[in-house]
Amino acid sequence: MAEKGLLIVVSGPSGAGKGTICKKLLDMDSNIKMSISCTTRLPRKNEIDGVNYFFIDEFKFKKMIAEDSFLEYAEVYGNYYGTPKKYVDDMINQGKDVILEIDIQGALKIKEKYADGVFIFILPPSMEELKNRIKKRGSETEESFLRRFNSAFKEINYVSCYNYAIINYEDKFDEAAEKIEKIIAAEKCRVSRLINDVHFKEVFLNEQ
Amino acid sequence: MAEKGLLIVVSGPSGAGKGTICKKLLDMDSNIKMSISCTTRLPRKNEIDGVNYFFIDEFKFKKMIAEDSFLEYAEVYGNYYGTPKKYVDDMINQGKDVILEIDIQGALKIKEKYADGVFIFILPPSMEELKNRIKKRGSETEESFLRRFNSAFKEINYVSCYNYAIINYEDKFDEAAEKIEKIIAAEKCRVSRLINDVHFKEVFLNEQ
Repeated sequence: MAEKGLLIVVSGPSGAGKGTICKKLLDMDSNIKMSISCTTRLPRKNEIDGVNYFFIDEFKFKKMIAEDSFLEYAEVYGNYYGTPKKYVDDMINQGKDVILEIDIQGALKIKEKYADGVFIFILPPSMEELKNRIKKRGSETEESFLRRFNSAFKEINYVSCYNYAIINYEDKFDEAAEKIEKIIAAEKCRVSRLINDVHFKEVFLNEQ
Repeated sequence: MAEKGLLIVVSGPSGAGKGTICKKLLDMDSNIKMSISCTTRLPRKNEIDGVNYFFIDEFKFKKMIAEDSFLEYAEVYGNYYGTPKKYVDDMINQGKDVILEIDIQGALKIKEKYADGVFIFILPPSMEELKNRIKKRGSETEESFLRRFNSAFKEINYVSCYNYAIINYEDKFDEAAEKIEKIIAAEKCRVSRLINDVHFKEVFLNEQ
């Protein structure tokens, strides 16, 4: 039987660089797969069903909600988005590590259902640097900039709900991605996981 | 201020290969230092004070016990051995990671005083392989072999008191040492450590 994979949940304020880090990680390690969400919004040009999203209609989505088929879901501007439990479970049972890049609200919901997950928070090098990054992304007005910055500032307090925090220093996306790889390797050695593993129990805890 | 180092406590049954793994780790990573024990036994040929051990007399050792200067100590065949708190603390405050290879009784004592430590258990690939390794090391009689093997077998149950377990597959000492390196890197990203770090608090949890 293949060793089970891990669910890696990655969050962080806008401007922390989590998207780029996750992409690096996928390039780096072929055992890591991105989780694919279901959505009711229409595909954009170039988006492929089963690659970018599973595109489904609202009837199907609500049926899946009723069947408790999502690790989490949310409605955003009239469209539904959700993380399908089965896809994640299938990957993990095949031994793949599944990365899920998700906002804090989503991550907290997943933590309730999937305490075995590894929760990683990506931080900017400093609040000053976060200010610059949000400015660079182009906020239209001082007011909208402040709204975004204050929201990011509040989000950072949720770091205490996560297992790990990685500071993403400027232009060191590779380093941050490597840290996630090391966290995955370390988590696979955690005794709290191993003592629930059938093979481990068989070899070390029963035989005489 | 330098980032604090970690105390890494390594145990495992005789024949698991922990000694070789620790040596590999020291060669691999110059930031890792071996803890140096105090002992009242006389230096053997080629042993150097302050390198292999701190050689001290019984009067000094008992004074240190009275002053609570050991993380743990034990008497073995009339000689005392102990892990000096100050040496470990000094290294850690300089940002070094300190490896302490120690038996399970010692490790459990350290866990009481130093819950921040990272406790790693080294396992053989299987109990069958452990049998072979103990046999190879040469036990004089079947009885003494059985005593050693049964003692190793009992020790393995203590794995549940450790944070991590590493299976040392035959001739893959480098791989096992690399796993410890990854565990160290991951542990330095643990939120439970970071939120007690002065610098981290200053940057992320107070500034507005």
